[in-house]
Amino acid sequence: MNGWVSIVGLGPGRESLVTPEVREVIAQATDIIGYIPYVKRIAPRDGLTLHASDNRVEIDRATHALSLAQQGARVVVVSSGDPGVFAMASAVFEALEAQPQFEGVEISVQPGITAMLAAAAAAGAPLGHDFCAINLSDNLKPWSVIEHRLRMASRADFAMAFYNPRSKSRPHQFGEALSILREECGPDRLITFARNVTHEDQRLTTVTLGEATEEMADMRTVVLVGNSATRRVGPYVYTPRSAL
Amino acid sequence: MNGWVSIVGLGPGRESLVTPEVREVIAQATDIIGYIPYVKRIAPRDGLTLHASDNRVEIDRATHALSLAQQGARVVVVSSGDPGVFAMASAVFEALEAQPQFEGVEISVQPGITAMLAAAAAAGAPLGHDFCAINLSDNLKPWSVIEHRLRMASRADFAMAFYNPRSKSRPHQFGEALSILREECGPDRLITFARNVTHEDQRLTTVTLGEATEEMADMRTVVLVGNSATRRVGPYVYTPRSAL
Repeated sequence: MNGWVSIVGLGPGRESLVTPEVREVIAQATDIIGYIPYVKRIAPRDGLTLHASDNRVEIDRATHALSLAQQGARVVVVSSGDPGVFAMASAVFEALEAQPQFEGVEISVQPGITAMLAAAAAAGAPLGHDFCAINLSDNLKPWSVIEHRLRMASRADFAMAFYNPRSKSRPHQFGEALSILREECGPDRLITFARNVTHEDQRLTTVTLGEATEEMADMRTVVLVGNSATRRVGPYVYTPRSAL
Repeated sequence: MNGWVSIVGLGPGRESLVTPEVREVIAQATDIIGYIPYVKRIAPRDGLTLHASDNRVEIDRATHALSLAQQGARVVVVSSGDPGVFAMASAVFEALEAQPQFEGVEISVQPGITAMLAAAAAAGAPLGHDFCAINLSDNLKPWSVIEHRLRMASRADFAMAFYNPRSKSRPHQFGEALSILREECGPDRLITFARNVTHEDQRLTTVTLGEATEEMADMRTVVLVGNSATRRVGPYVYTPRSAL
């Protein structure tokens, strides 16, 4: 029996956003590997082993997946959102590169609905023109890189989406990010805080950069910043398709 | 009867990537509006009117949708990929803003799998770190804006995804984009051309910027450019999660 690893995206939370392709891959699996809250989303059944692990052990988890697959298991690594956007896909390839004994293990990636696009859909169309996605966590990069990217993205007049804007261990960096954005984009730029997007308790708040405070974000929030043309129409926020 | 407009994403092509949520909204519709090849993806049934229109009439299409909904119809506007990424969602909000008589029409957006994420999944994880998405068509913005964004994105060291890289009416601009990228990122940067992604004839080609030529892209191609750390491992292309 040939094993494989499939890295799948479960979407941001609402079950009706899980693609049929991902459901099918999960139905074929012998093992599910992932962060505890994502593995909880998988229904137990005979012949399926659930391996839930804590946060920040991505490489261990990826190595476990490759090892099981090499022994013949059909392993699904679950991410929320899309596995290729600040999630497990890169971690699996990092583990593969570091451990040549896993060369030849069959790996595939199944896309999912990533949080920024679900948040944008809930708000209207704030990412309707050129945009960027930045992970604001400095676990894996220095803060100076994040600061530089915020400035370059502002000067490109990109709409922006921020993942992991704020955590308990770094409560003040998001305030610094807001200061940089206010300096680069001015106080009138629209910013949307989307918390628990697609969950029952989803909450969307749109304010200006001048009104935004760091307390408006936490680790369950995706933050969207408009470009210079982003505006409101009725209850919606959108970015027009054209640029000057 | 209260009408509504729902703007949905059908994903890049493979039917198993259409979310159950989008299927459900289509099942409730009285009218489907969209560009001819996307409307063709909807199965005809009694009680459902299909309105297919040609390219570049997005505002007419959006106005038609709002008008039908105001008369009580349940209208689904279909886009490929995600409706909020270079697709119909912004056009509907532009039409709403320009025509206040449609104020109060209920509008929702259902996300879909956008082409760049399906292409990234097929290649490995080239968008696994901070990235941007740029529409290379100059139909709705001057080429100078695109050139500026390419330079800012390069200096931010974003991975990049390009939509609409090249068409028959502007065959040479993509060559200019490649020149800018070579100048900013050097000849060794990886670039992936993903044509007809998730369709049966999907074709993925990864080369360096030094090897890339403008003929490698057409309107059915999504182009992904790595950041300075993007590399190959076996048959995969990926961007590590960390940055220096």
